[in-house]
Amino acid sequence: MKISDTNTNILITGAGLCGALLGLRLAQRGYTVNILEKRPDMRTKIVDAGRSINLALSDRGLNALKMVGLGDKVKELCIPMKARMIHPKNGAVITSNYSGRDDDYINSISREDLNKLLLDKADEYDKVQIDFNDEVLSVDVKTGSVEYKDSETETVKQWHPDILLGTDGAGSKVRQAMARQREFFFSYTTDWLPHAYKELRMPPADDGGWRIDKHALHIWPRGGFMLIALPNLDGSFTMTLFMRRKESPQSFEQITTDEEVTAFFKEEFPDVFDEIPDLLEQYQRNPVPPLGTVRCSPWTAHGKVLMMGDACHAIVPFYGQGMNAGFEDVTVFDQILGECDDWEEAMKRFSVERKPDTDAIADLALDNFVEMRDSVSHPNFQTKRAIEMKLESAFAKAQYSSKYSLVTFPPEGMGYREAMKRGRAQDKAIIWLIDNDLIKVEDSAESLLAAINKKTEEVIWHRS
Amino acid sequence: MKISDTNTNILITGAGLCGALLGLRLAQRGYTVNILEKRPDMRTKIVDAGRSINLALSDRGLNALKMVGLGDKVKELCIPMKARMIHPKNGAVITSNYSGRDDDYINSISREDLNKLLLDKADEYDKVQIDFNDEVLSVDVKTGSVEYKDSETETVKQWHPDILLGTDGAGSKVRQAMARQREFFFSYTTDWLPHAYKELRMPPADDGGWRIDKHALHIWPRGGFMLIALPNLDGSFTMTLFMRRKESPQSFEQITTDEEVTAFFKEEFPDVFDEIPDLLEQYQRNPVPPLGTVRCSPWTAHGKVLMMGDACHAIVPFYGQGMNAGFEDVTVFDQILGECDDWEEAMKRFSVERKPDTDAIADLALDNFVEMRDSVSHPNFQTKRAIEMKLESAFAKAQYSSKYSLVTFPPEGMGYREAMKRGRAQDKAIIWLIDNDLIKVEDSAESLLAAINKKTEEVIWHRS
Repeated sequence: MKISDTNTNILITGAGLCGALLGLRLAQRGYTVNILEKRPDMRTKIVDAGRSINLALSDRGLNALKMVGLGDKVKELCIPMKARMIHPKNGAVITSNYSGRDDDYINSISREDLNKLLLDKADEYDKVQIDFNDEVLSVDVKTGSVEYKDSETETVKQWHPDILLGTDGAGSKVRQAMARQREFFFSYTTDWLPHAYKELRMPPADDGGWRIDKHALHIWPRGGFMLIALPNLDGSFTMTLFMRRKESPQSFEQITTDEEVTAFFKEEFPDVFDEIPDLLEQYQRNPVPPLGTVRCSPWTAHGKVLMMGDACHAIVPFYGQGMNAGFEDVTVFDQILGECDDWEEAMKRFSVERKPDTDAIADLALDNFVEMRDSVSHPNFQTKRAIEMKLESAFAKAQYSSKYSLVTFPPEGMGYREAMKRGRAQDKAIIWLIDNDLIKVEDSAESLLAAINKKTEEVIWHRS
Repeated sequence: MKISDTNTNILITGAGLCGALLGLRLAQRGYTVNILEKRPDMRTKIVDAGRSINLALSDRGLNALKMVGLGDKVKELCIPMKARMIHPKNGAVITSNYSGRDDDYINSISREDLNKLLLDKADEYDKVQIDFNDEVLSVDVKTGSVEYKDSETETVKQWHPDILLGTDGAGSKVRQAMARQREFFFSYTTDWLPHAYKELRMPPADDGGWRIDKHALHIWPRGGFMLIALPNLDGSFTMTLFMRRKESPQSFEQITTDEEVTAFFKEEFPDVFDEIPDLLEQYQRNPVPPLGTVRCSPWTAHGKVLMMGDACHAIVPFYGQGMNAGFEDVTVFDQILGECDDWEEAMKRFSVERKPDTDAIADLALDNFVEMRDSVSHPNFQTKRAIEMKLESAFAKAQYSSKYSLVTFPPEGMGYREAMKRGRAQDKAIIWLIDNDLIKVEDSAESLLAAINKKTEEVIWHRS
C-alpha cells in the first residue's frame, strides 16, 4: 500500500486520546479514516471511563497538539503546575519547581475535556467518521479485518480496511489478537505493581476557589504509599491514593471499614481529612484499579496492522507521561510516514525505532514511583535541586537540563531513551560531586556545568 | 504446612531433569513424592523428546548432583570439554580454553543418559512414585489440585497434594494455570529470538572414533548465524545450526531445497559438509524449534504451588546454563527448606530470592549468542583471553575469575546476578586497559590483577 495513495482506507479501533488524535492527523494528511469506539460519544452522554480523571500534559503531548493545530485551544483547558508541593507527615510544606526555566511547566487537564477537543476537531474533517457504541469483537491481524457490533442495526458486521491501527488502550483487542495468532512470534507481558490506586475528589472551597495551591502538583509521600492531587478547572482537586493491594498494614485489603479509613487518614493525611467532607463515602464507593506496565513486540503485523499508545506500551502514571508518550507516537509516526514509500515499511520502522523510547519511559515511570514516595529522604536532594535550578535558569535547554526536564521538557528531538541515559548519569554525577564536596550551590553556573558535564560523561562511558 | 512434617504429600509435574532431581532430593529429605510424567519411561521405550540431545553440564549442575550423591556416577557419562574450538570461514582453527585453571571444564552429556541416571537413583527411594504416560490436563493453583489422564485406567483422575511443584518445562501447564487465574496478579512473557535451530548428527569416523577433537565445544561463527558441535560418547557429535527463521538469505525460510542446503553448507561449512554423508536427509527431516526466554512472577501461589526450572525461567542455550540453572534451583530450594519453618514461607523466599539470578542468566545467555557468533571479531579478544588465562592460572577462584568462569565455574556461593555484575564490569575494564596500553600479557600477574581490580571497581561504582 503506497503512502502517497490517499484512497487508502484506514480503520482505527478506539477514539480515546491517542486514537482521536491519530484519526485527526491522518485526515489532515488526506486519508479516509473510520474509527470504531465502544463507548458512547462523551460529548452527548456522561461516560464513566474507569480511567484517571485528569492528567499531566507536557511538551511531548503539546507538540503533537500543535502539529494538528490545537496548540492554542488546548491552553484554555490547562492549569499550569509549576512545582511539586511536598506535604511531609510532620513539618512544613516543601515547594520544588519542576524547572529552573519559567516557561517549563506541566499542565493539569481533564481527560474528558481534552478528548472532546480532539473529537470536535476531527469532526471538522469529512474524511473522518467516528462510530460510537460500536464494540470490536474480534480482529484478524493477517488481513486487518475487524468484526464489531454495530449499534444502529444491532448486528455483527465486518470491516475490511487497507490498514488497521489499534489505539484501543491497555486492554487492546488488537494486541489480544496478536497474542493469539501463530503466524509469527509475538512477545508480550503485563508487569503488575503490588500497588493499586483509588481516586478521591477534594471539592472546591466554599468561595468556589481551590483549597490548596492550584499551580502545583501536590504529593504526600509516605514511603510505602502516597497521596497526590492535581487541580481541576472547577476548583476541585482529583486526589489519587497509591497503596499496596495487600500484605501490609497500609493496604487496600487492610483499610476497609469506616473506622479504619478514618484512623488511617487522620494519622497519615490529617490536613486532607478535614478538606473532604464525604471522604468515607467516596472511599467506599470508588474502585481500586491495578497498575501495570504493558510491553510487547512487534507492534505491527503482515504490513496491515499497527498498534500505538497504551495498546502496545501502557505504563504506570508516576512520570505523568502515559498520554504524552501516546501523543508523541503520533508525531513520530507522522514523520516516518513522510519519509517512507509504503505502509509496511513505515509501520515496521515505527515498531522498531519507537520501542526503545517507550521501553525507557516505562522504566523511568517505575523508578519515579520510588522517588515520589521518598521525595525528601535523600539528605542532598535539596542541594541537588538548587544546583539544577541554577543551571537551568543560566543556560539553554540543550546546554543543561535535569533528568526530569530531559523527559518532560526535552531539548528538540531528544527521545525518552536518550533522556533516560543522560538523566540517570547526571543524577549519579551530581550526587557524587556533592557528596565529595566538589561542588556547592554558591559556585558559578559555568564551573558547576563544567564539573557536572565532565563527571556525567565519565559515568556514561562506564555504563556503555 | 510445616516443613518438619514429613507426612506432607508432594506432587511434582514432570520427571524431566529438574523434576527427577527435585523428587529425588525431597525423598532424601523424607517426604512422600509423586511425580506425573506425560512421556513414557525413557528407560524402557525410546522417547523422542523434541529437546536438545546433549547438554553442557558444569559446576552449578554438578553441585546439585553431588548433593544427591551422584557426583561420581555422573562423571562416567561426561565428556570433558576444556576449550572452545573456533572454525573461522577462512583460516586456521583457534582453540581457546574455557579457563586458565586445569580443573575447570564443562562436560558434554546426553540428556537421556542423565535423566535415566536420576530416575534410577529416584527408584532407590520407596517414597518416590513416578507415573509415566500420565498427562496433566488442568491445574487449580488455589488448591494445588491436578487433573490428569491416568494411563492405566484410561480415565481422568484428580490429585489433591499438600504441595504442588511444577517442573514441567518451558510449556508448563502450571504456569498456564497461573496465567489464567484472577486471584492474584501474575506477569509472564516469552521473548522469542528471530533465530531458530536445527540439530544434525555428525556420525563417528569409520574407526569408531570422533571426526573432530572430542574434548572441545566446536563453533563455526558466521555473524548472523552459527553452527556448533558437542561430542557424544558413541563417537558422534550433535551439531546445532542456529539461523534466522526468515527475512534473510541465510534463514530456514530461504534455505529449503537440497540444492540450497548443499550450496549453503559448501559455502559456509565446507569442512562439515564432507563429514555428514546424510546431511540433506537430516536437514529435510529434522524440526526447527524456536528459541525463547520465559520470564514470570511470582513463581508461587497460595502457599500450595511453586514452579522451578524451565517452567518459570526457560532461557536460550548460548551460555550452556539452562539445565545448570534448573539444577541449582533445587540446591537453593533445598537450602531454603533447611532455613524455614513452613512451606509457604520457603516457597515465597525462593520465588523472591532466586528470580534475580535466573533473570541474570537469561540476559547473559542472550548476550552470549552475539559473542559466539562474532567470536573472533574483536581485535583485542585474544589478548584479553591470554591475560585472563594468566590470572586464572596464577590465582585462586575467589581472587580472579573471568566472566565466563564466574558464571560457569563460580567461586563458592556466587549467584548468577553477582557473576553478571562483576563479569561485565571486568570485561569493560580489561578492554579499556588494553586499548589504552595500560596492561599487556607480559606484565606480572600481580600487577595485572591490581590494575584490573581497580578499574573494575570503578566501573561497578559508576554502574550502581
